Amino acid sequence: MQRAGVDALLVSVGSDLPYLTGYEAMPLERLTMLVVPRDGDATLVIPRLEAPRVAEHPDVFTLRAWGELEDPVAIVAQLVGRPRVAAVGDTMWARFLVELLGHWPTDGTTYVRSTTVMNDLRMCKDAAEIAALQAAGAAADRVAAQLHAGDIPLLGRTEAAVSADISARLIAEGHDVVNFAIVAAGENAASPHHHPGERVIREGDIVLCDFGGTKDGYCSDITRCVALGEPAAEIAEAYAVLHEAQAAGVAAGVVGAACQDVDRASRRVIAAAGYGDHFIHRTGHGIGMEAHEDPYMVEGNALPIAPGHAFSVEPGIYLPGRWGMRLEDIVVATEQGPLSMNFADHALVTLG
Amino acid sequence: MQRAGVDALLVSVGSDLPYLTGYEAMPLERLTMLVVPRDGDATLVIPRLEAPRVAEHPDVFTLRAWGELEDPVAIVAQLVGRPRVAAVGDTMWARFLVELLGHWPTDGTTYVRSTTVMNDLRMCKDAAEIAALQAAGAAADRVAAQLHAGDIPLLGRTEAAVSADISARLIAEGHDVVNFAIVAAGENAASPHHHPGERVIREGDIVLCDFGGTKDGYCSDITRCVALGEPAAEIAEAYAVLHEAQAAGVAAGVVGAACQDVDRASRRVIAAAGYGDHFIHRTGHGIGMEAHEDPYMVEGNALPIAPGHAFSVEPGIYLPGRWGMRLEDIVVATEQGPLSMNFADHALVTLG
Repeated sequence: MQRAGVDALLVSVGSDLPYLTGYEAMPLERLTMLVVPRDGDATLVIPRLEAPRVAEHPDVFTLRAWGELEDPVAIVAQLVGRPRVAAVGDTMWARFLVELLGHWPTDGTTYVRSTTVMNDLRMCKDAAEIAALQAAGAAADRVAAQLHAGDIPLLGRTEAAVSADISARLIAEGHDVVNFAIVAAGENAASPHHHPGERVIREGDIVLCDFGGTKDGYCSDITRCVALGEPAAEIAEAYAVLHEAQAAGVAAGVVGAACQDVDRASRRVIAAAGYGDHFIHRTGHGIGMEAHEDPYMVEGNALPIAPGHAFSVEPGIYLPGRWGMRLEDIVVATEQGPLSMNFADHALVTLG
Repeated sequence: MQRAGVDALLVSVGSDLPYLTGYEAMPLERLTMLVVPRDGDATLVIPRLEAPRVAEHPDVFTLRAWGELEDPVAIVAQLVGRPRVAAVGDTMWARFLVELLGHWPTDGTTYVRSTTVMNDLRMCKDAAEIAALQAAGAAADRVAAQLHAGDIPLLGRTEAAVSADISARLIAEGHDVVNFAIVAAGENAASPHHHPGERVIREGDIVLCDFGGTKDGYCSDITRCVALGEPAAEIAEAYAVLHEAQAAGVAAGVVGAACQDVDRASRRVIAAAGYGDHFIHRTGHGIGMEAHEDPYMVEGNALPIAPGHAFSVEPGIYLPGRWGMRLEDIVVATEQGPLSMNFADHALVTLG
């Protein structure tokens, strides 16, 4: 906080709070907020009826339980005093910041994102965090292997049914929660975040499956495509380009390179094959306790990749109205080079 | 907006957006924001790769898809101009408000919660919304009936296993998602929001089950307790008090009464029986597209209850280290009186 020039750090719902305290707040209208003054002790302001759920760590923070007739925002404002610079948790509900703005005359306070303070702690995963990402990745890989082996029926089922099946398998393989299970068939795969629906999977489709969950606090995220029947030449050729682009992105994820270099490496391959206009998103996102977090692998992000940075490499090619494909692994940068969390077959496996 | 003196309404993730547009944004770091100027047309600012998921309603809003290399916050700031009063969605991520604060010199803008505008629209449920709440309530009632019938095994199972069982049944009975399934056995029930864990349910326990989900966009929420074996006299007597307190709260939920009157009605019964210090939370919360929303049934809320207000009535009695109990229905205020969404047996059903 001293280095970042931050006087007060305020975190509420989201992963900064469990990262710092071990306690995950429920996203409810009753305010839970950890107040960390730069030069004082941390206080966890918490609804009285949630207080029994907190494992206390008096060396880390004290509890200030508030009753139903108190104003928790006033309590936070009093604990903080009048900060010159307040760092605010990314996923805190805006209503609480709106209410805090009423307590602090805004001409005296500058607000910054909590990432200003937290990224130095959270972006570089330590050995235990990398092990957790590996375990989550291995669990997702097992579901991908079931997909590739034909254990997850596709033909004649709806996207929604396959998505539910994949979700159940993510849990069965050890995830605590499912974060998403995109299943997009044929033309639907041209929408990168397609919501699985009633579209029935047919012979001739390629089916994009992008799924992940959280296991012991850390996230998995993998994308594989399968073809129902021998794919058309156009699709097979595009997939070969995608495969090469993904590998190029992974290879570029070395310590000292810029984050945008990963994006450029993948994009160059796809553009050279003539699909540049059909790769419509960044190449990757950081991952850890959150499914998406810093650092982002996107043009314009010159941040140097450091040991322990964990991120996805997931180029895609999308032809509206026709088909889409994406290939994704999670990678951790190490001094020895990019370390993949995913080993599921990278080919366009043909089924049925 | 004119009545509330609001120049611009900004809504992002949360239920205001689907309420107004039919589109539910994923809670991601890529900004989705509906910008509604008081005197202009509404614009939905959305990541380009999400745009295919939106059903367009040009009479309601236009789309402004942003590409990966654009700054969506700058786009929003430009669309809004310089509002004197900006109303901000409650559950918008604070990071986006922090970023907007950098665009609007804060000395010129006052921020208020979007509820300033939206509560007039959302608090009073119309006939279709009440029907949706009834359908969700009936689905939750069917799970409660299974609990009462002994169809959900309890003895010898962990709270976590029973919670998973209830969750599966909520889905089987028609919910699209489960919002929570609290199962708290014996002394654990003294923590109102206990997280179901490895505690095994035993003969002699009373078990508190508080569960609900979302069905077709509207929420259910019900609490019932069951006793494993004939309850001790103290517990049976306390439950009789609780039962009476809950009924008194429901009866007080009439059009024209203040919200706090519901709380007072339940609390008076519990206090008269000597358990006043053990009823440690408000009596209820509004419910609709969100599990908790305005109006709240809490001391200090003098808002008059209006036809269509939907809310929980859920008094509880909690003896730390020993036992806890809560009884909850959802009620909709109508000109004809309080209309319950739940009809599951209100008794402390004895099982096993």
